[in-house]
Amino acid sequence: MSEMARTPQPPYYAVIFTSERTEGDRGYAEMAEEMARLASIQPGFLGVESAREGLGITVSYWETLEAIQNWKQNERHLIAQSKGKSEWYLKYKTRICKVERDYEYKQ
Amino acid sequence: MSEMARTPQPPYYAVIFTSERTEGDRGYAEMAEEMARLASIQPGFLGVESAREGLGITVSYWETLEAIQNWKQNERHLIAQSKGKSEWYLKYKTRICKVERDYEYKQ
Repeated sequence: MSEMARTPQPPYYAVIFTSERTEGDRGYAEMAEEMARLASIQPGFLGVESAREGLGITVSYWETLEAIQNWKQNERHLIAQSKGKSEWYLKYKTRICKVERDYEYKQ
Repeated sequence: MSEMARTPQPPYYAVIFTSERTEGDRGYAEMAEEMARLASIQPGFLGVESAREGLGITVSYWETLEAIQNWKQNERHLIAQSKGKSEWYLKYKTRICKVERDYEYKQ
């Protein structure tokens, strides 16, 4: 289970990745694990939150737009993006956002 | 199952609401349905995407920050927010974002 990301004071950036999967695993779980590991060691990575319930939503958080761009161009990530289109996703949407404010609650 | 939101060309706004629930329903499902219905008829509402897998992620999309503020102050929503703290959520985090770019893929 994904946990809530501990992000710093805004502003920072978020990538909202919403997707619908194809049937079957087709190597997806292994790739997802590798991408999570690689993203977490990228410069400027702040955290990630993920849930799938039919629709999948993954939100990754980054210090700068440049950090997002660098991750998008990562060699292994490029391969994953290509297989995402050919194998794993029926459709997806990626939204690049600037987080302007945040607030939280804990019991 | 939540579907992918059909949003217009950026810029627009996103509210990323990440949460961990308490045990049991406690009237949550009924409230969630009412809030989804009420949000969808708010001025400036563009769409919503939601998934829970332990961690819950709900992203709602809005035309302006003012629309987000108006929804936050909605009378029924204020009651739901209060019960969210007393009954439904162990913790949550809300992030207000400006969507600067988006792109999508369909098979």
